[in-house]
Amino acid sequence: MSQPTPVATTWVNGRVADNLPVTDRGLAYGDGLFETLRACRGTLPLQALHLARLQRGCAALRIPFEADLIAAELNNAAAIVGDGVVKLILSRGTGQRGYAMPADATPSRIISISPLPLYPSDRRDGVHLFACTTRLADQPLLAGIKHLNRLEQVLARSEWQDPAFAEGLVCDQQGAVVECTMSNLFARVAGQWVTPDLGRCGVQGVMREYLLAQLAERRQPARVARLSRDALYQADEVFCCNSLIGVWPVVRLDDQVWQVGGETRLLQSLAEQVYL
Amino acid sequence: MSQPTPVATTWVNGRVADNLPVTDRGLAYGDGLFETLRACRGTLPLQALHLARLQRGCAALRIPFEADLIAAELNNAAAIVGDGVVKLILSRGTGQRGYAMPADATPSRIISISPLPLYPSDRRDGVHLFACTTRLADQPLLAGIKHLNRLEQVLARSEWQDPAFAEGLVCDQQGAVVECTMSNLFARVAGQWVTPDLGRCGVQGVMREYLLAQLAERRQPARVARLSRDALYQADEVFCCNSLIGVWPVVRLDDQVWQVGGETRLLQSLAEQVYL
Repeated sequence: MSQPTPVATTWVNGRVADNLPVTDRGLAYGDGLFETLRACRGTLPLQALHLARLQRGCAALRIPFEADLIAAELNNAAAIVGDGVVKLILSRGTGQRGYAMPADATPSRIISISPLPLYPSDRRDGVHLFACTTRLADQPLLAGIKHLNRLEQVLARSEWQDPAFAEGLVCDQQGAVVECTMSNLFARVAGQWVTPDLGRCGVQGVMREYLLAQLAERRQPARVARLSRDALYQADEVFCCNSLIGVWPVVRLDDQVWQVGGETRLLQSLAEQVYL
Repeated sequence: MSQPTPVATTWVNGRVADNLPVTDRGLAYGDGLFETLRACRGTLPLQALHLARLQRGCAALRIPFEADLIAAELNNAAAIVGDGVVKLILSRGTGQRGYAMPADATPSRIISISPLPLYPSDRRDGVHLFACTTRLADQPLLAGIKHLNRLEQVLARSEWQDPAFAEGLVCDQQGAVVECTMSNLFARVAGQWVTPDLGRCGVQGVMREYLLAQLAERRQPARVARLSRDALYQADEVFCCNSLIGVWPVVRLDDQVWQVGGETRLLQSLAEQVYL
């Protein structure tokens, strides 16, 4: 007997609802933040890192951050979905026309649950990257946080349809490597992991943070630094990661081919242990 | 007897509604565009310029552009509001999680009407600009169009609350003048109008387009060029403009003071004639 496909369920400000007032500033200006969490047997293993990033985003955008309320709602959603995805959108709330932040806005919390995305299982043994021509703009005020202004990612992701490419590499305006469209990138250079500095553009992924912490704990700290396209090509191992996919080794970009290395397998194993 | 305040009314995809599915990509990623039009006695005098910009935005974001349907709905809203504001949000429509543009998405049209904003009438005789420290990022793929990724404007507008400042000046990452938070800027330099080039950031305002066309028709074309902060300080006349406010002469920025000049009054008069 086949199981019925789970239907995504949504809550708005704590109540079951699937719509939002059109005056919400999340719609009007992308004035808000989001988090996408992987639920595992009803829990959210990386919740603390997600909430820390959300708090940084709230500080940058000056949106009130109600940690306990949000954590409770996320945990409730995780208990319902079991194994799956919990997504939170936190917008500034409704407002009149005009860019000025309303003095009295109450943030909107939109939480939805959905099944884990069905990626081909062989991606854990290596993926091809598409080289996107879309370049990320330098904006230190918004770099690192997961805000709702995501047209750059939408444009970059639209550059390829061929499913042979699992992800797309995105660079900054100067041509340095930043990240992939929905994941962060690590490269093994001269015996050390390097991941691009995200001080001017890019999203500080939670899996990236987790792996950086794991490496630091093992006294093999990664370097967070500028990574040129040439340095990436010459790297010994490359992988991309996020909290849903874990670690995907990169085995091809343009004409460059890599083997899946032992250091990548080690981090992949650490990522997979999060959800055991 | 006081009149009751007109209540804003909203249509979603042609039906009276004040909410939208939370799966709309306008909310998820700011994946869409907007236009704010001034209605005058039930008509939209600059509608053609608004629709032209919307079409450019649809081309840039690859959102289908249904010109006739949108024009009909805007005209319907204008007839109802009479004298006021008609705002359109055109998003890519609903979609699953993920940045990839859905192949089958139907754009969402959200149209709302509201009264004209109540700005102090003395602003037509000169305004003070606040010098924002928020700088706009260089992103040629999104420059000029009126997309929904507006966190930079939200941050810039949040830098001042003092109503003595009517608008805020915003520069690019290199410190050159781009625009104001909700309007474009013109400066009179060496006997010619200059307005910043918006090829890397900024919004091509409809009133700016209208005034550029008017100047060209009078064989006094403006220069569209880089405008340094120093060049702005040294200008003989300065104004900001948009299709709701018309032309506001700028009489102060930092310690620099300007008089309201005759050339500014001429363009102000042209802007006001649009809505007579």
